[in-house]
Amino acid sequence: MVTTKNATLTASIDEVMMNVLNAFNEYKKILPEQKANFLETIANEIEALGDALINQACEETNLPATRLTGERARTTMQLRMFAAMVKEGSWVEASIDTAIPDRKPTPKPDLRKMLFPLGPVIVFGASNFPFAYSTAGGDTASALAAGCSVVVKAHPAHAKTSQMVYEAIKTAIEKCNMPANVFQHVHDEGFKTGKDLVQHPATAAVGFTGSLSGGKALYDYANERKNPIPVFSEMGSINPIIFFPDTLEKNNEALVKMYSGSVTLGMGQFCTNPGLMLAIESDALNIFLKNLSEEVSKFTPSKMLHEGIQKAYVEKMQKALSQKGVDVIKNIFHQSNGVAYPKIAFTSGETFLQNPTLHEEVFGPYSLMVKCKDINELKRVWMSVRGQLTTSLMGTDKDFNEYKNIIEEAKTIAGRIIFNHPPTGVEVCPSMMHGGPYPATTDSRFTAVGINSVKRWVRPVCFQNCPEYLLPEELKNNNPKKIWRLVNNHFTNGDVA
Amino acid sequence: MVTTKNATLTASIDEVMMNVLNAFNEYKKILPEQKANFLETIANEIEALGDALINQACEETNLPATRLTGERARTTMQLRMFAAMVKEGSWVEASIDTAIPDRKPTPKPDLRKMLFPLGPVIVFGASNFPFAYSTAGGDTASALAAGCSVVVKAHPAHAKTSQMVYEAIKTAIEKCNMPANVFQHVHDEGFKTGKDLVQHPATAAVGFTGSLSGGKALYDYANERKNPIPVFSEMGSINPIIFFPDTLEKNNEALVKMYSGSVTLGMGQFCTNPGLMLAIESDALNIFLKNLSEEVSKFTPSKMLHEGIQKAYVEKMQKALSQKGVDVIKNIFHQSNGVAYPKIAFTSGETFLQNPTLHEEVFGPYSLMVKCKDINELKRVWMSVRGQLTTSLMGTDKDFNEYKNIIEEAKTIAGRIIFNHPPTGVEVCPSMMHGGPYPATTDSRFTAVGINSVKRWVRPVCFQNCPEYLLPEELKNNNPKKIWRLVNNHFTNGDVA
Repeated sequence: MVTTKNATLTASIDEVMMNVLNAFNEYKKILPEQKANFLETIANEIEALGDALINQACEETNLPATRLTGERARTTMQLRMFAAMVKEGSWVEASIDTAIPDRKPTPKPDLRKMLFPLGPVIVFGASNFPFAYSTAGGDTASALAAGCSVVVKAHPAHAKTSQMVYEAIKTAIEKCNMPANVFQHVHDEGFKTGKDLVQHPATAAVGFTGSLSGGKALYDYANERKNPIPVFSEMGSINPIIFFPDTLEKNNEALVKMYSGSVTLGMGQFCTNPGLMLAIESDALNIFLKNLSEEVSKFTPSKMLHEGIQKAYVEKMQKALSQKGVDVIKNIFHQSNGVAYPKIAFTSGETFLQNPTLHEEVFGPYSLMVKCKDINELKRVWMSVRGQLTTSLMGTDKDFNEYKNIIEEAKTIAGRIIFNHPPTGVEVCPSMMHGGPYPATTDSRFTAVGINSVKRWVRPVCFQNCPEYLLPEELKNNNPKKIWRLVNNHFTNGDVA
Repeated sequence: MVTTKNATLTASIDEVMMNVLNAFNEYKKILPEQKANFLETIANEIEALGDALINQACEETNLPATRLTGERARTTMQLRMFAAMVKEGSWVEASIDTAIPDRKPTPKPDLRKMLFPLGPVIVFGASNFPFAYSTAGGDTASALAAGCSVVVKAHPAHAKTSQMVYEAIKTAIEKCNMPANVFQHVHDEGFKTGKDLVQHPATAAVGFTGSLSGGKALYDYANERKNPIPVFSEMGSINPIIFFPDTLEKNNEALVKMYSGSVTLGMGQFCTNPGLMLAIESDALNIFLKNLSEEVSKFTPSKMLHEGIQKAYVEKMQKALSQKGVDVIKNIFHQSNGVAYPKIAFTSGETFLQNPTLHEEVFGPYSLMVKCKDINELKRVWMSVRGQLTTSLMGTDKDFNEYKNIIEEAKTIAGRIIFNHPPTGVEVCPSMMHGGPYPATTDSRFTAVGINSVKRWVRPVCFQNCPEYLLPEELKNNNPKKIWRLVNNHFTNGDVA
């Protein structure tokens, strides 16, 4: 219930926020089954847009139709996954401790706790996922599942695609009889819009996917507020991959194939693009590097998401290549005929450790191999870039037995440790962790992918000695939906005896 | 592995932090059973200090021995509760999704995730809980349970008590063969010490209990860092209590007794002290207010925790009483013979809404009744102070039926909603939520009391396609400890088939 208007805010943002706050106050009371139906209907309405949506996204993003079709399927799958989660119901983490009235010296009260939605959530969609991390993407789906209302700031690089998805959501709102303003769509009005949205008194939390500078700015805006709010920014990552000696000896060819596929996938436009390789100097490493450079040079490039991204890629890549001590084996074009080319560079451990420019993300199909003198230098290089979404360990059992401590150290680097696989391909499932120590994300305790991403938009509320008839369904003694609850410190899906 | 020293840090803090970081790297590998034994041994060693500890605390805090004996029991109970949690093991939230190698179009990888400790935690103890929220209090116990090493900055108001507890922990470290520096103790060296501790590169998280200005300062220091870290500040709260009309009519006498006991308990030196009462004008309200003022005036006061707190109480109380439109029924002493007196004041809804000074916490046995014209004004008053640890609803079934929306609104105010009971008395159990919207705490998503407080010091790490022999015990297929895990989206305490 925000009653004061902040005079520095533009009138239209204030109107949007008051609408979405009023809608929240209705939406949060809606029953799980209705919320699940709403999420499923959004999925259906997006599918009903058919080829027109894919064509529009192709036009705006340069991404191929096959990729976009797959991404749309992931998007609707996510919506249905959250619908199933809401229907099942255990996600609210219900916890019940029953009273002990005759306890000495004081009676034990009855305490019951579960998760409730925070309030209106602002979502800043990603340029590189026009469906799965944009208008009806993971952040929106998880926030609506939590019971929050949502304002999406449309990404200017695919504003028309975003508008189409918004229309689909509007149809779903009408069909399901949801509060009309539970989802709001704001087109880019420049830099100030984002700040105004984050700093509006009605805003309760923020989700962002993009650059470190953008994500950090929103985080700072949120902390400047009279009441700071959580900001979940998923920012840059170079996803270091270690190639251990034995696997380089034994699996050289397979590694070249796997790695070249990963670094060039989708023109490298993924937060999980592998930007950094680490290995100890050896003949096998030289062969790997030569063959990888050769393999990558055969790749037929396509246009990147938009001109700005392609320009930034070429500039950052050139800057990295121009650093002292950085070299390439096969010097193909940087760009030609309007497309940019992938690039494999290499340098020494010493050079890398001394030059922070080489630690920066080059968003695109670029990867730097750091040839280290020994395992100690390799570890120093690895530790110098910690704060990553992922780190991959390519090794045989012999390697892992030789470098036993590596997993303990990997846990300090990243949110996900991958064995013998590149980081691209983020499985959507409960055990996924898509998030990592700063600056990979602003809050390493939460994932942006999978059902647990809903935990970003909720907080626990405890009811003490609440009459049974006033309790939320999830906290009543009877548990007809058989949700899992912690009752007197034991997990059970039964009733309270 | 922090290798760069920040030149602005004092040498001694840097030494402490490097020691506690090195200790963390050992401690985090220690088995659950050993960690549990360590926590239990701390509890035993604190008890072994016997009366000497109680006497020291009495001397430093002016709190009576009975209260301190009870608080010590709570402290050792908390340590044993976390020991039990660690031994049982389900707290790591293990989640397993097994592979589907033949899934089309791409194979599903094997993903397994659980919680791991963040790193060294800085704890700033509370002045008002020399045991339970100080050196070996809830923050320390939960951080050690999580696998974090801990630095406590001793509260200057009870530095000797803190030192004795530190010695007990040191003995436990030796007896249990823990890393020598897993727990460090820093005496106050002024304002800068706290800042240096929070901003040291090795620090991973911060726990604080105290004033809004102190908690906000630490929060801001943490956000100024190159890599921001979580700060859990538990700050002021005035814990509004609504007295509904029917209960005032029917239970006037009982309410007076209950409320007078709560507002004077421990000289009002609790974060859950009830500082604000709300009711609709009526004859019953006038009787309640008169009788409450009378009852409270009979209270025999004692010295507050220390002179500074007593001085602040009298000053803030006088400031509140001097505001236009604020009055008292029974004007007893503010202070006399070195002790301060409890005070019940009253004002109108209109006055309260217009004067922010009246919204501030007066730390001590003070409570303000806001006499509202009607339910709408009452709700406006209530909403104007949101961001509270607790809010209490005193009402009969008739009241709750008449004011049906009240619970929905209570959820936006506080972390805990209490029915027909004042907020003092914080039960330590899994369903407790001790935390609330800003400024009650800096992060409303976490509790500072109960086993879930461990969640402040951990983050999830996911293992993808990890060979079974490299997995942590909690994520292996076999589950001999029968911990509860989410396996392929179903809760089970069995093995992975």
